[in-house]
Amino acid sequence: MNNPFFVNFGPFSISNLLESNIKYVPSLTGSSDDDTLIYDVKNLQEATSKDITFFHSIKYKDLAIKTTAYACITKKEFFNLLPKNCIKISCDNILLLTAMVTAKFYPNSLTDDNNYDLVDSSEKFKNVIFGKNTLVGLNVNIGKNTKIGHNTIIENNVRIGNNCLIGSNVILKNSIIEDNVHILDGAVVGKKGFGFIPKNFKNFRYPHIGYVLIKKNSEIGCGSTIDRGSLSVTIIGENTYLDNQVHIAHNVKIGNNCIIAGQVGIAGSTIIGNNTKIGGQAGISGHLKVGNNVEIAGASGVINDLDDNSKVMGYPATNIRKFLKDNK
Amino acid sequence: MNNPFFVNFGPFSISNLLESNIKYVPSLTGSSDDDTLIYDVKNLQEATSKDITFFHSIKYKDLAIKTTAYACITKKEFFNLLPKNCIKISCDNILLLTAMVTAKFYPNSLTDDNNYDLVDSSEKFKNVIFGKNTLVGLNVNIGKNTKIGHNTIIENNVRIGNNCLIGSNVILKNSIIEDNVHILDGAVVGKKGFGFIPKNFKNFRYPHIGYVLIKKNSEIGCGSTIDRGSLSVTIIGENTYLDNQVHIAHNVKIGNNCIIAGQVGIAGSTIIGNNTKIGGQAGISGHLKVGNNVEIAGASGVINDLDDNSKVMGYPATNIRKFLKDNK
Amino acid sequence: MNNPFFVNFGPFSISNLLESNIKYVPSLTGSSDDDTLIYDVKNLQEATSKDITFFHSIKYKDLAIKTTAYACITKKEFFNLLPKNCIKISCDNILLLTAMVTAKFYPNSLTDDNNYDLVDSSEKFKNVIFGKNTLVGLNVNIGKNTKIGHNTIIENNVRIGNNCLIGSNVILKNSIIEDNVHILDGAVVGKKGFGFIPKNFKNFRYPHIGYVLIKKNSEIGCGSTIDRGSLSVTIIGENTYLDNQVHIAHNVKIGNNCIIAGQVGIAGSTIIGNNTKIGGQAGISGHLKVGNNVEIAGASGVINDLDDNSKVMGYPATNIRKFLKDNK
Repeated sequence: MNNPFFVNFGPFSISNLLESNIKYVPSLTGSSDDDTLIYDVKNLQEATSKDITFFHSIKYKDLAIKTTAYACITKKEFFNLLPKNCIKISCDNILLLTAMVTAKFYPNSLTDDNNYDLVDSSEKFKNVIFGKNTLVGLNVNIGKNTKIGHNTIIENNVRIGNNCLIGSNVILKNSIIEDNVHILDGAVVGKKGFGFIPKNFKNFRYPHIGYVLIKKNSEIGCGSTIDRGSLSVTIIGENTYLDNQVHIAHNVKIGNNCIIAGQVGIAGSTIIGNNTKIGGQAGISGHLKVGNNVEIAGASGVINDLDDNSKVMGYPATNIRKFLKDNK
Repeated sequence: MNNPFFVNFGPFSISNLLESNIKYVPSLTGSSDDDTLIYDVKNLQEATSKDITFFHSIKYKDLAIKTTAYACITKKEFFNLLPKNCIKISCDNILLLTAMVTAKFYPNSLTDDNNYDLVDSSEKFKNVIFGKNTLVGLNVNIGKNTKIGHNTIIENNVRIGNNCLIGSNVILKNSIIEDNVHILDGAVVGKKGFGFIPKNFKNFRYPHIGYVLIKKNSEIGCGSTIDRGSLSVTIIGENTYLDNQVHIAHNVKIGNNCIIAGQVGIAGSTIIGNNTKIGGQAGISGHLKVGNNVEIAGASGVINDLDDNSKVMGYPATNIRKFLKDNK
Repeated sequence: MNNPFFVNFGPFSISNLLESNIKYVPSLTGSSDDDTLIYDVKNLQEATSKDITFFHSIKYKDLAIKTTAYACITKKEFFNLLPKNCIKISCDNILLLTAMVTAKFYPNSLTDDNNYDLVDSSEKFKNVIFGKNTLVGLNVNIGKNTKIGHNTIIENNVRIGNNCLIGSNVILKNSIIEDNVHILDGAVVGKKGFGFIPKNFKNFRYPHIGYVLIKKNSEIGCGSTIDRGSLSVTIIGENTYLDNQVHIAHNVKIGNNCIIAGQVGIAGSTIIGNNTKIGGQAGISGHLKVGNNVEIAGASGVINDLDDNSKVMGYPATNIRKFLKDNK
């Protein structure tokens, strides 16, 4: 993933990356005075031989064995699940150390400082219609025939396609919006996710260096919130419609032609297939896979993966016929 | 229904209305060169002999037999349920053709283009107190002693009564607000509903030509969304109070003296009686009838009609005593 | 509780307080021409010998017997549960009369009239970074190194600590924000609660004279709403994080180090301990006590008190193991 939204302060050597955190690292394979430069932090799948990665759950062992990362933050028990030549860094709190390393690369991603260099309107955008009091950041791209409502804020580096309709009071940051997308009043797209390492007295915020991608012909309802990914991208597929007050957490990926009714919530890192319909107020737990052509009844709570063509209802969501029969 | 918010581009003859969609019309009773002018599209009940209507579900057969519409979009199986002299237009996708015909009458209702001719404040409104950065559209009416908060947007043709209190960051469009109504910060009233004809790659948006009516002495909570009707009116009754983050979908009609707690969602076209209380986070499916004096416990999911004086809880919502007994 | 946000129009004598409401008072112990001045209305616990209080539910009898209030609005059956020298005022609708008395002391607390004397930005705040179009009220305090986003409204008397980050489109009123708090885009903090005395045709709004206290190191998510207390304070504890679209009702008190996921709703006057985790979309009824170290699964509905260290799921929320076993 290229990172159009956050400046990478690297490269750093491993010792440089770990220096202030070395107390958390009981074991490190490889030389302590290795000065090879590491350029980025990526997930197991995307990391190259110039990157550092992390491996915290056995769930990802198939990806771990194939990673080409130069180094990996993990725990001793997982050392033998990683490639031989990958430098292994063990620690007690893998996510905390990963967060600290990520924060070293991307110090500006820890909090959502607003851009304070926004302009009131811009001569730069031909063929764009702006409402009143619209604020546009640096290096923003907006396509032809796109309309932007009143009081809307478009922060630095956001890209918006052609023929889009952005409502009033909308906030867009760290987002790429393709053609013909409608984003309705009051939606907030691209803020950091609700991810942090809990610590008494002062949690450690996980740096969110991902972004939001909204594919063409989609619609985002009024007051909805779509958080950007932590290391990856939050995706709303093509021709997928979200109703009002929907909440999409970080790293969620939704397929094409989906219909998501009002007040639905989808927790972090869940993946949803194409042509899936989700009724109002339904909730979907994090880290799940929901297939294609799935129908989830309103107010259901999904806590397990769902196969293609499933039709479910209830909490925990179960086969809809069974649910209705059991609850006659 | 008069339409104070959308310009009617009619009248049109039937052939004119159907010309670009004729491929969807396998059968049409009446002459193909009938040049009688049709003035509007209305529902079965409201359509006059100058209007076109539609009939897509057997549920509405009692209304169909009595319609006085000049023409009706329906399917062949329903032809004999309509009056003899009503011209019947059959097609595969009744809602899609109705949407296309409606869009022909009201091309500006397909999307919620913001009004770009708003003014920053107005000399016109005596006895109205405005906050900072308030934007007011053309042809807006605001009564005496009404107060409007900061950054609030009031789009063209909206009417607001006397002694109203409109908060900050509120968006009002296509709405009629009676006297003594309070609309709290960040509410969005009158945007189009979540109605469209699903099509792969590009859904067809259903034109929403209705409006929102909020009757006197009511209160709309912070961050709530009330969508306008598609062909009819979305109504919040007299002295009915909505808490924060409530979602009311298109065509919903709520009676008087109702109490609707936080984060409740009511799906499209549901009708709710008087003196009904709905607990926080409860959800009500679309196209239902909920009676008078009903009590719905918080977090319940209502999927069936409810008689007057019902007290329900659970999902699917059932008698509250039974529910509590079964769940001891 | 000192009241930094509402002007107290007292003191008043009892006869003065009751004069327009005397028809509701069938019985009053003490002399009808008692001209002792009463300075404030407080709850049973906080009322001093210069205050009036109220006692409406047997639930509070232990507090009633110990109250030092000069007078108490209650019903005849409760007279003998109050101290001998406390003047007892009986009436049919205790909450209505209390509301009327409170409104006499604090007439400005009935509705959330916006402050109309906000300024666009201020020379006064050194070491504070403001976005565009920020509005700041009278007598506002903002600490060092705090950043305020665009279009944000900070009403009269609000106090914000050092190193805070307030997003864009945020509304703060009647609130005290300690150091190092983050409040994300579109949150509304400190508006009046959803409390009123239902009456046909025109409800009587309960005056909300409390405020919101957000303790240090906390985070409030995007689009969340936190209502101020009626007579007391709504509290978000230290290092407690709320995700997006959370709703916290009036008088709720949440402990330290809590984690509250997206779209959770907590009804009025509920108290939650420290280190408690609440999953997305869970709902908690009003007037409950939830202990320390409790875990509430997403989408659960809590309708009973929960002991320390409970882990619950479902609706009504029950032991999580039992729930999962019963729902296999």
